[in-house]
Amino acid sequence: MVRGNTEVTPKDGLTTRQRRNQPLVVVNHGGGKGKSTAAFGLALRGWNQGWDIGVFQFVKSAKWRVGEQTALEALGRLHAETGEGGPVEWHKMGSGWSWSRKQGSEDDHAADAREGWTEIKRRLADERHTLYVLDEFSYVLKWGWVDTAEVVDTLRDRPGYQHVVITGRDPHPDLLAIADLSTEMVKTAHPFDKGQKGQRGIEW
Amino acid sequence: MVRGNTEVTPKDGLTTRQRRNQPLVVVNHGGGKGKSTAAFGLALRGWNQGWDIGVFQFVKSAKWRVGEQTALEALGRLHAETGEGGPVEWHKMGSGWSWSRKQGSEDDHAADAREGWTEIKRRLADERHTLYVLDEFSYVLKWGWVDTAEVVDTLRDRPGYQHVVITGRDPHPDLLAIADLSTEMVKTAHPFDKGQKGQRGIEW
Repeated sequence: MVRGNTEVTPKDGLTTRQRRNQPLVVVNHGGGKGKSTAAFGLALRGWNQGWDIGVFQFVKSAKWRVGEQTALEALGRLHAETGEGGPVEWHKMGSGWSWSRKQGSEDDHAADAREGWTEIKRRLADERHTLYVLDEFSYVLKWGWVDTAEVVDTLRDRPGYQHVVITGRDPHPDLLAIADLSTEMVKTAHPFDKGQKGQRGIEW
Repeated sequence: MVRGNTEVTPKDGLTTRQRRNQPLVVVNHGGGKGKSTAAFGLALRGWNQGWDIGVFQFVKSAKWRVGEQTALEALGRLHAETGEGGPVEWHKMGSGWSWSRKQGSEDDHAADAREGWTEIKRRLADERHTLYVLDEFSYVLKWGWVDTAEVVDTLRDRPGYQHVVITGRDPHPDLLAIADLSTEMVKTAHPFDKGQKGQRGIEW
């Protein structure tokens, strides 16, 4: 919660306002909790600014529905009804993306992931959203489903004012290298260690 | 996003359901970003479960209003109107707490912090909320405004099903010791390093 304390005064010829309003690439990584939760918390914050929020979950189970989806979609409806906050779109890979007519292949997660990235690339070019959450996208790069160099180039060269938040373990070094803000979540204690299973409201 | 993978099977005589539904003490600490953001993200998740959410911000500026407050309060209103999700209360120390008639002293943050903790203790005894977020509470212990042993005892002996999330740097070791789940947020890259100031939607 530091506000306005800078360690270095940059010589980039930008005004404070210009510098303040730079679009960021944010990476939440590490083996601890809070990577996705903090990303969805940023979406909450962005909603309040009236930003157009696009969440893209690169998860395999279509049945999985986290509480944040329901809550953020409720805020999106509130925006549609009252104008408060901003619009929210939430897309999940599952077996096939919601924008796609074709049923995604149950087996071919690589193809589904590529389709997701292609759509995100299109939206970045169109400046469709202000904040993109690419949840668990690091794995898509790790497993080679999408070319890392292409992702890095696309993010680095994206037009306009678009923030992109990427979550997941083991982010590719080239991705970390272009991150303006990256945080490693490190587990210091976790109930799973004591044999406790994940619970409603805490884990999803 | 691990669901149900445990490393140890505990011999505590509890069923999986009992174990699953254990109330947790969660501590988000470290010098990186995402401590509060992840805590508010958990509140979002809890809201979706219909939990009663109480947020207590131990911050000094009354003028400070993070986006999450507006968004979570909007969700609280939605609950009041439609029954969806759960109720949300958001209290901020500022200069005096909102429940208090007396104007808090501009100077005596210690007294304000103690008053906040006394109220939280009362609510824990009454089982008022399901999820408590004590934002930046670690500093209250660090600066000796509230007795750490008393906090540890109160949290450990709290009745019923009440989750408590505490954020802030340098948590007291005794607090960490009773945490069921603790995560250290470690900065790996941050725009402040490049001389960029905090920006709307990202920092607040």
